[in-house]
Amino acid sequence: MAETFDVVDIIRTKRDKGTLTNPEIDWVIDAYTRGAVAEEQMSALAMAVLLNGLSGEELATWTAAMIASGERLDLSGVTRPTADKHSTGGVGDKITLPLAPLVAACGVAVPQLSGRGLGHTGGTLDKLESIPGWRAQVSNADFVRQLNDVGAVVCAAGDGLAPADKKLYALRDVTGTVESIDLIASSIMSKKIAEGSHALVLDVKVGSGAFMKDLDRARRLAETMVGLGTAHGVKTVALLTDMDTPLGRTAGHALEVAESLEVLAGGGPADVVELTLALAREMLAAAGVDADPADALSDGRAMDVWRAMISAQGGDPEAPLPVAPEKHVVTAPESGVLSRLDALSVGVATWRLGAGRARKEDTVSAGAGVVMLAKQGDTVTAGQPLFELHADDPTRFERALAALEGGFTIGGTLESRPLIIDRVD
Amino acid sequence: MAETFDVVDIIRTKRDKGTLTNPEIDWVIDAYTRGAVAEEQMSALAMAVLLNGLSGEELATWTAAMIASGERLDLSGVTRPTADKHSTGGVGDKITLPLAPLVAACGVAVPQLSGRGLGHTGGTLDKLESIPGWRAQVSNADFVRQLNDVGAVVCAAGDGLAPADKKLYALRDVTGTVESIDLIASSIMSKKIAEGSHALVLDVKVGSGAFMKDLDRARRLAETMVGLGTAHGVKTVALLTDMDTPLGRTAGHALEVAESLEVLAGGGPADVVELTLALAREMLAAAGVDADPADALSDGRAMDVWRAMISAQGGDPEAPLPVAPEKHVVTAPESGVLSRLDALSVGVATWRLGAGRARKEDTVSAGAGVVMLAKQGDTVTAGQPLFELHADDPTRFERALAALEGGFTIGGTLESRPLIIDRVD
Repeated sequence: MAETFDVVDIIRTKRDKGTLTNPEIDWVIDAYTRGAVAEEQMSALAMAVLLNGLSGEELATWTAAMIASGERLDLSGVTRPTADKHSTGGVGDKITLPLAPLVAACGVAVPQLSGRGLGHTGGTLDKLESIPGWRAQVSNADFVRQLNDVGAVVCAAGDGLAPADKKLYALRDVTGTVESIDLIASSIMSKKIAEGSHALVLDVKVGSGAFMKDLDRARRLAETMVGLGTAHGVKTVALLTDMDTPLGRTAGHALEVAESLEVLAGGGPADVVELTLALAREMLAAAGVDADPADALSDGRAMDVWRAMISAQGGDPEAPLPVAPEKHVVTAPESGVLSRLDALSVGVATWRLGAGRARKEDTVSAGAGVVMLAKQGDTVTAGQPLFELHADDPTRFERALAALEGGFTIGGTLESRPLIIDRVD
Repeated sequence: MAETFDVVDIIRTKRDKGTLTNPEIDWVIDAYTRGAVAEEQMSALAMAVLLNGLSGEELATWTAAMIASGERLDLSGVTRPTADKHSTGGVGDKITLPLAPLVAACGVAVPQLSGRGLGHTGGTLDKLESIPGWRAQVSNADFVRQLNDVGAVVCAAGDGLAPADKKLYALRDVTGTVESIDLIASSIMSKKIAEGSHALVLDVKVGSGAFMKDLDRARRLAETMVGLGTAHGVKTVALLTDMDTPLGRTAGHALEVAESLEVLAGGGPADVVELTLALAREMLAAAGVDADPADALSDGRAMDVWRAMISAQGGDPEAPLPVAPEKHVVTAPESGVLSRLDALSVGVATWRLGAGRARKEDTVSAGAGVVMLAKQGDTVTAGQPLFELHADDPTRFERALAALEGGFTIGGTLESRPLIIDRVD
C-alpha cells in the first residue's frame, strides 16, 4: 500500500529546523509502530528532534500520536477519584511503596503502572518482586477490580499502552537520543495519559543521582510535562525534588521494601516521610479529596491497604524478605561532619552489588544493596560504620567500593538544598 | 568479544558538539562495516555529523578509516602515470566517455571506476551499457592489463573498495543524511583514493541540475575534497562547473554515447568539447605530462583508444546504437531568445522517459532521452522544434512533457555564467 508521506522528507524538514505538520507527525508515529518506518529512519529523526527541538504544537501532536498508537485504559468502572504519581527516578527512591497505599487509605484510587530499573536507579517492580509470591502482571479486569476493592494497584504496564513509546524508548537507549526534554516528556506523558487517571503528580528529580543533573533542565521538563497533561484533561502537578544525595537509608530492592514498611508503621527516615506526605497531599488535592495523610500513617490504615495490595497480587506480606548472605562495612576514615554523600556513587555501588541490570534480560539480586548508617549532615567519628554493603557474592564488593570512593566527604562545608525544591502547576 | 568503545558514547560526543578521537573514528567505521554498530546507531551518528560537522582532522581520519575498510587498488604494475576524474553528476554529463580515451591517447593511464545512475542524473556505466556487448565488470588483473595495453578502463567498482562507504551511502539515502559536505566528501574521496591513482581531477557541478545548487557549498565541497586527496598523497584539483543548463545537446544513454562519438571525431557541441579539453589538460598536468589534448581529438588518436577500450570490454564499437521507437517533438511556442533551459527539468524529463531508475534494481531504457535542438542562448522562431523526446513507450511522453513545462523561457534576459566557473587546487 502506498504511504501518505515520505519519511525522508519528514526527517529533512526537522533536520533543516522546519516545523512538521500534524498529519506528518500522526503518520510517522503510526508508520513507525507498524514497521513502515525503519529503526534507522526513526533514529535519524530522533537525533534531529533532539538537536533542533519540537514546537509546543509539534510536541502535543507527537504525544497524542504516541497515546493513539495503543489503547487508553478505561477506568470508568472505578468508583473513586483516581490519582497517579510518576518519579523520574532516583537512588533510594522507594516512595511509591508507602505512597500508593497511603493515598488509597485516604479515599483516592491509585492506578500505578511501573517499570523495571535499568542503569543505576532501581525499578519499583524489582523492589516489590523481592516480596515472596508477589506478581507484577495484572489483567485489565483485575486492575479495575483491585482499584475498587483495595484502592491501589502497582503493576507492570501491558503491551497495549503506547506501543510506539515502547519501540522508541528502546531505540533511543542505543542511539544516544535519550537526553531530549521533548522526547522524555512525550515518553513519560504518553504512558501516563494512556493509563486513564484523573490526576497525576510528577516527582521530577534533580541532582547527581537523577537523570536531570541541572535545575533549569529539570524545571523545563516539569513544565513541559505539566503542559502536556493539562492539555489532555489530566490535572497535573510536578514537584522538583533533590537527588544530590540518596533518599532514606537504603538502596536495594528488599532493603527498600523493609524501609517502606517502617514508614507505613509510622516511623522511617525523615526525608522519606516528608516526601511521601508531600506527594500524598498533592495527589489528594488533585483528586479533590480533603484529608490529612499523616493520620493514615499514624493510625495504621495505610499499612492495612499495603497488606491488602500485596496479598491481592499473590504476595505474602508476613513472609520474611530476602537477605543477602555477604556483608561488608565501610567505616569513617576521620571524624567530622558528613558534608556530602553523593547519590550517583551510592547508586552505582548498589548496581554493582547486584541490584541493577545492564541489559533488560538480566536478573537482579533481591537482597543486594547499600545501607547508609550515616546521612548527609550527620556528624561522624573516625572508625564509625558509614555503609553496610550487602551482596550475594563477596567478589562484588571490590567494584562497589571503587564506586563509593570519592562519593562522600567528611569535613568541609555542608552544601545541601531543601528536599522539595519547587512546585510546578 | 568485547568492543574497544561504546558507540552510544561516540554518538553522544558528536551530538554534544564534541570532537571524536582518531581511535574512536577508526573503531566506529570498522565496527559498522563488521555489523557491530547497528544501522540505527550509524544513522543517529550521521545525523549528528550532518548537524554538528566534523573538524578537519576528524574528517581526514573518517575518510582514512573508510579507505581502510577495504582494499586499495595496486596500480604499481601500470607503466604510465595515472590520472582519474570524478564528476559530482549533472544532466547530459557524458564527459567521461570522450575524456578517458583522450587522456589515454596523450600518454596518461585512466583507471576510471564509475557508478550507475540514481535519480535524475545518468550513470556512466548505464551509458556505456547501451553499446552492444560492452561489460562493466573487469577483474583486477584485467584492469591493470587494460591500463597498460589500451590506457583507459571505465568499469564498475568491485565490492572490495571502501565497503564502509557502500553501507553508509545506502543508509544515508533513506535517512535524510545525504546533504552533509563532510559525508559527501569522505564518500567520494574514500572510493577515489582507494582506486590508487596518482592524480585526480574533480568536476564539481553547481546549479539546478546538480546536487549542489549553491556556489558557496559547491566551493566548500571542492576545497574539502582537494584537501583530503592532497593529504593522502594524490595530486588533486577541482573545477567548479555550471549545471544550471544541460551539457551538450543530448540527455539519455545511447544518445549521449552518439554525442561523445561526435566529440571523439573532432566535432560535437562546443560546451562538451570545452569541458572535455579543460579536464583533459588538468589531468595531464596533474600527471606531469606535457601534451595538447586538442591534437589527439583532431588527429583521431582519441577515437582509436575509444575503439580499443570498448572492444577490450566486449563491446562492438561499430555496432549501431539502440534507438527508441517512439518520438515526440516539442516546438517553440513563440519567437525570441531561449534565455533559460533548465537542467533539472531536462533531467527529470529524461528520467521519466525511461532513462532513469527509482530503485537500484530497476532497469533503464538505452534509447530513451531528450535531444535538445536548441541550446540556452539560441534565437528561436515560433513553431521551430526545441526538443525531441525519445521513449520505448508513447505513454511516457505525458509526464516527461509535464517536467519540461516551465523548464525553459523564450524572451526575457539571458542570465548565464561561464561553463567553467572556478578552479580549486
